Amino acid sequence: MSGTDSEFDLIRRYFAEPAAAATAAEGLRLGIGDDAALLAVRPGYELVVAVDTLVEGTHFFPDHPPASLGHKALAANLSDLAAMGAEPLGALLSLVLPGVDHAWLKGFSQGFLALAGEAGVPLVGGDTNRGPLAISVTVLGEVPAGQALRRGGARPGDRLVVSGALGGAAAGLAHETHRRTRGEAPADSGNTACARLFWPPARLGVGRALRNRARAAIDISDGLLADLGHLCAASGCGARVEWPQVPLDPLLEGMAEPEARACALAGGEDYELLFALPSDEPLDLLAFSVDAPLTVIGEMTEGDEVTIVDARGARLEPGRAGHDHFAG
Amino acid sequence: MSGTDSEFDLIRRYFAEPAAAATAAEGLRLGIGDDAALLAVRPGYELVVAVDTLVEGTHFFPDHPPASLGHKALAANLSDLAAMGAEPLGALLSLVLPGVDHAWLKGFSQGFLALAGEAGVPLVGGDTNRGPLAISVTVLGEVPAGQALRRGGARPGDRLVVSGALGGAAAGLAHETHRRTRGEAPADSGNTACARLFWPPARLGVGRALRNRARAAIDISDGLLADLGHLCAASGCGARVEWPQVPLDPLLEGMAEPEARACALAGGEDYELLFALPSDEPLDLLAFSVDAPLTVIGEMTEGDEVTIVDARGARLEPGRAGHDHFAG
Repeated sequence: MSGTDSEFDLIRRYFAEPAAAATAAEGLRLGIGDDAALLAVRPGYELVVAVDTLVEGTHFFPDHPPASLGHKALAANLSDLAAMGAEPLGALLSLVLPGVDHAWLKGFSQGFLALAGEAGVPLVGGDTNRGPLAISVTVLGEVPAGQALRRGGARPGDRLVVSGALGGAAAGLAHETHRRTRGEAPADSGNTACARLFWPPARLGVGRALRNRARAAIDISDGLLADLGHLCAASGCGARVEWPQVPLDPLLEGMAEPEARACALAGGEDYELLFALPSDEPLDLLAFSVDAPLTVIGEMTEGDEVTIVDARGARLEPGRAGHDHFAG
Repeated sequence: MSGTDSEFDLIRRYFAEPAAAATAAEGLRLGIGDDAALLAVRPGYELVVAVDTLVEGTHFFPDHPPASLGHKALAANLSDLAAMGAEPLGALLSLVLPGVDHAWLKGFSQGFLALAGEAGVPLVGGDTNRGPLAISVTVLGEVPAGQALRRGGARPGDRLVVSGALGGAAAGLAHETHRRTRGEAPADSGNTACARLFWPPARLGVGRALRNRARAAIDISDGLLADLGHLCAASGCGARVEWPQVPLDPLLEGMAEPEARACALAGGEDYELLFALPSDEPLDLLAFSVDAPLTVIGEMTEGDEVTIVDARGARLEPGRAGHDHFAG
């Protein structure tokens, strides 16, 4: 703890100056340093906004690599924008810090700002406060009026499609937990077994391509089955998932099938998009225009049940669905 | 801790349903329950956004009345919108909770939603997570393009004006601290000595009236002198404050002068507006159109110094300026 580092200095040193040095974003009118930020939303567009918070001990281990945390905190929020089909406009960061750890702040800000630069989302505001470590990010985006993707809207007969591959984040978490029980050193940010856990994607390009094509969409943050449950509930229908079609992360190779199934169906934090595509909407055209694989994993059904079936159509047990920090 | 209360249930039960029952806000297109919220910003307006976080132990005592906390968390953010001259569009709430305390949640949500209803700001999104108590609010607003009030822009010769009265929050905090050292029961939400500390205003009407009139504005969250310092630094000028003109909160009556001066000049959380008004802009017309007293307390000056003077023009010691959670 240095007595010379004020809240204002911290934001300026680690975030405002590097952010200002990056190319100015089109919609940004006034960034960090006033009572609030000013942004322009394009005429004919609606504003999209989401918030997500990561808490030490609940969402990550105390020794989680700081650059990965900066990346993840922003990626989780950009993933919500992607699930709405939105373009990012800006982000706000609220950091609660137990003290001033310059190495941690340097790593965290580099991870955060690297993804911000890549996704073209300026950091427009934020605050820092003293307390137990927690990271809250608010993202702002815009979407052509009336074209936002929602969770409701899927209909029986729609194909159920997922981007990328699933289970990698859960596999990484299992690896990390195992290491810790053996008393080994924590993984560094380059650990390949934790690649998906540490560096989740934000499928903004996929979300954009889904506008006017998908009937409903959600991002997979709580686990495929939990998030599919939300999509089904909002759409008033059920779904059938064909387990052999579910694209598995390479990190699941060599894993026993029940364990792989738990990772891919019930593991959280993969941040892929799950969406319902009308049966007459060509998938190959869509797949051609995005930078992630798209895989049909099942179909929306009548009723309100979500079932998982094997190659012969026999029902499989889902395993534990998603995670909920307040459930028993 | 109840095993049946999930994150989703908490938001729905305490926030989403009461919020939905309130009159629908004009700009709201999609509220709580999807990956993100959708809002419309009026054509010709810019988006205004700010975030502020309250942490237990740093910003409030563990036994702080929950209804006041709900009010304060939103008021502190609306105050930032007011300082920009903005109209509120919506708010997002991120709660980190050590467990599910229904009495606390009921009180907190009532305080939050009462102010939200009064100010016409719908709760459009949020999340809850488990961890040490922290409350992060993001507010969204809109302001006619080019008319936002900023901290920079004041010029030497401008009158320095403040809304309402100062020092009440600091007096309440002193009262609370004193009670605790005597081992007395914590103040309830109706405690008159803590009225300003517990129920700060959000001067949205004043901020709106200042558009195209004030040259610079800031809200007083860190203390008059600290926030005046920010305004001076952004404007590239200094200021002279005439101590006898500073409007004092009635809670300061009977206090020794040095103590009253410390509360009014260096105490934080009064959430009044401080602004620079050109000398040819009539104050009486402006005062007539707002619902809080406006008082000229000094003048912007050449240079970069902030001075406080007594009735004879002699310099006074400012006392300790503002609070900064990371300063020594």
